Amino acid sequence: MKVVLLGSGNVATHLGQALKSAGHQILQVWSRTFENAQQLAVSLDASPISDLESLSEEAEIYIISVSDNAIPAVCAQFPFQDKLIVHTSGTTGLDVFDGHLNRCGVFYPLQTFSKQRAVDFQKVPMLIEGSSTNVTGDLLALAKSLSHKAVILNSEQRKALHVAAVFACNFSNHLYSIASEILSQNKMDFDLIRPLIEETAAKAQTFNPQEVQTGPAVRNDQLTLAKHFEFLKDQPELRKIYQLMSQHIINFYQKS
Amino acid sequence: MKVVLLGSGNVATHLGQALKSAGHQILQVWSRTFENAQQLAVSLDASPISDLESLSEEAEIYIISVSDNAIPAVCAQFPFQDKLIVHTSGTTGLDVFDGHLNRCGVFYPLQTFSKQRAVDFQKVPMLIEGSSTNVTGDLLALAKSLSHKAVILNSEQRKALHVAAVFACNFSNHLYSIASEILSQNKMDFDLIRPLIEETAAKAQTFNPQEVQTGPAVRNDQLTLAKHFEFLKDQPELRKIYQLMSQHIINFYQKS
Repeated sequence: MKVVLLGSGNVATHLGQALKSAGHQILQVWSRTFENAQQLAVSLDASPISDLESLSEEAEIYIISVSDNAIPAVCAQFPFQDKLIVHTSGTTGLDVFDGHLNRCGVFYPLQTFSKQRAVDFQKVPMLIEGSSTNVTGDLLALAKSLSHKAVILNSEQRKALHVAAVFACNFSNHLYSIASEILSQNKMDFDLIRPLIEETAAKAQTFNPQEVQTGPAVRNDQLTLAKHFEFLKDQPELRKIYQLMSQHIINFYQKS
Repeated sequence: MKVVLLGSGNVATHLGQALKSAGHQILQVWSRTFENAQQLAVSLDASPISDLESLSEEAEIYIISVSDNAIPAVCAQFPFQDKLIVHTSGTTGLDVFDGHLNRCGVFYPLQTFSKQRAVDFQKVPMLIEGSSTNVTGDLLALAKSLSHKAVILNSEQRKALHVAAVFACNFSNHLYSIASEILSQNKMDFDLIRPLIEETAAKAQTFNPQEVQTGPAVRNDQLTLAKHFEFLKDQPELRKIYQLMSQHIINFYQKS
């Protein structure tokens, strides 16, 4: 397909590369900041623009990949009425398109994208929603050209998935950062804990996480919990997280 | 070495198997419950016992691998004065051995062990502490026969490492469980989120987690945070966790 990318952040970058690798043609990359548009456009053999009035009419799909709060402004300035336009946001509904409801949709790749690291897009679940059966079909075909896993979800499900992803990914990564801080405060290297992080995630690939929960809280080992709580006495924020998570684990397994 | 294992839980099971695979001889497996001792002993070609008075004098090392609050009772009943005795606990100090301080130590494998899943022990960091240089040397040699990574830590560092491991592993796994619940409440499969979990942990193998944090909190994307908060309105406990973790992320990256 002929594609215009609106945005130049992590998602736009990885999605653009995946589209190009799959044989699609990126006509333009738009960003409010011309330098950002240019940087991504060069790697995609596309033209950079920073003015929505310069949007090409030639594209078959316009993909908005900007921060959630910037989507409405881009939609409002989008000059075409009958072009297929989608966004890549987990939490934004289809209703954001408002005046462009003729042919619009969502094209949400569920992955954590960092510019420093390549991603195998074939493994990235693509969550699709379309304003009509035709649009959904087109988006599904595009998604399948990029990924082994393309699934149709409605806006409410997609939001739930995004919330779940924040817990499983964003919060987990932050827990790794907390662990890294505790280690460095005590003159130990983060390498010590990397195999544990790897194994924890590897277990979740084949088991339900509830089946393989370990640690003092699931054993309701009050002695160890108390010692850890005492250890964190000078770090009240970490103590709060430790307390809340441990109590949630204890309640979770008492109920089940 | 000739080994007696005191305990029959996850750690004792995995450690026993690793010791046997590395060519060590497990003489006996002790557990308060004879059936548990028997079950593990069979797989290790060892004799099961449930009475500490039947402990063999032949072993070169006695490894206590029971829950932290049960360690003192086992120590108190341990009948030998000059035998090498160790425990496998992250949070328990060397001082638990009290009357057995002649030759004692700690032999702590940092991993999440579940009975359902085999572990490549070569990759498990072994944290060592000994009551004397000789003991430390013996424990280091034993650890190196099992793992590529054997490190000497004092009791305070080992406790810090254990606390860090609770954050990075136990709490992360529980966040996977929370994600799993949210997905199932909204009729989606946990499979959808498995690639994200895998990639999040894979990133932490080569990057510092602070460098690759993603999600609404690190962007301070208040619109998305508010939508997610609203989404969780009927689940006050999850809302509390969402709020506390997001605020901690926001503060963490504002400071740094």
